[in-house]
Amino acid sequence: MSPLTTKPIYFGSFLVTSQVFHLTPLTFCLVNLKPLLPGHVLVSPLRAAPRLRDLTPAEAADLFVTVRRVGRTLERVYGASALNVAVQDGADAGQSVPHVHAHIIPRRADDLGAPREGGGPDKVYDLLEGEDGDVGRLLRERDEGTGGRKGKFPAVDADEEREPRSEEEMRREAEWLAEEMKKDEEVEGEEKEAKGG
Amino acid sequence: MSPLTTKPIYFGSFLVTSQVFHLTPLTFCLVNLKPLLPGHVLVSPLRAAPRLRDLTPAEAADLFVTVRRVGRTLERVYGASALNVAVQDGADAGQSVPHVHAHIIPRRADDLGAPREGGGPDKVYDLLEGEDGDVGRLLRERDEGTGGRKGKFPAVDADEEREPRSEEEMRREAEWLAEEMKKDEEVEGEEKEAKGG
Repeated sequence: MSPLTTKPIYFGSFLVTSQVFHLTPLTFCLVNLKPLLPGHVLVSPLRAAPRLRDLTPAEAADLFVTVRRVGRTLERVYGASALNVAVQDGADAGQSVPHVHAHIIPRRADDLGAPREGGGPDKVYDLLEGEDGDVGRLLRERDEGTGGRKGKFPAVDADEEREPRSEEEMRREAEWLAEEMKKDEEVEGEEKEAKGG
Repeated sequence: MSPLTTKPIYFGSFLVTSQVFHLTPLTFCLVNLKPLLPGHVLVSPLRAAPRLRDLTPAEAADLFVTVRRVGRTLERVYGASALNVAVQDGADAGQSVPHVHAHIIPRRADDLGAPREGGGPDKVYDLLEGEDGDVGRLLRERDEGTGGRKGKFPAVDADEEREPRSEEEMRREAEWLAEEMKKDEEVEGEEKEAKGG
């Protein structure tokens, strides 16, 4: 069960209800089985539209307003200073689940090493193009029980030992993020009131 | 002069009026000095907000509705089958101009080589993290007249000879894209009318 809903929520063909930490009338947000960096989440329309062009203007607007709102909370609770936002829109752009999704990845200075050591801000793209950036393969392996470390993880050697997270671990993170999202919404509401808006 | 406006339009501190091919009340779209792939453009809020969190909900919504609309036209006119959309939100995420911008990059099957030859859809990230993904540096060099090929271009050897494009070339592309955007808007209008909407 999700902290937010008793209805099943699907990402493509995958049941992800326990991973969902934020819901709007059109959009849901889920924590990842194997985040590329701490706080790496996905934001998707509730309707399983495969491509951006399939979204209604209202769905596209709500998706990005939600990206902005979730990004702000992620940045605060993960002590980040920046965010990468990426949409792979179609298989030829690297999309692995035919259901629109924006990756949000919180970033900190030198979190992937210093540029002079071959790291730097853009090193995140090596992760997105690696095996663990393939969210479809990871969810498929979980559901089929065929998971396991078949290949090597690129670029971040220290993380090579990571295993996919348990349902319980993801649910706890989802519950925590849901609480933290509420705090920012309350602050936003109070600010609006103070302005007489 | 732009095909769309006589008012100067700035991207960060850079005057880019002649590169602008689409305008909404809140958002503008510009063609690139050195596109990473044909049809690579940027979508930005007219107000020079540095970070996503600085956008109003209306600006965030309009930005992404515009990304969706522009993406559809780009995909058609460049014969693409997919799109990469990426926002580097903050310096620690690789942002080079402190003015929110979404990259849209049209993609085709094997446009960056086949996966078995070391290419594939995600090869685009190598380009974004390369020198020519640094839109700030390129615009700075243009304005200072210090441009030139100081480094090598990664990953796409065939493109190593590319030079930054002339104002005239960018204006022609901007004018062409502005016309093509209008065609899709007309079709959309007719579809709405046919539905009685």
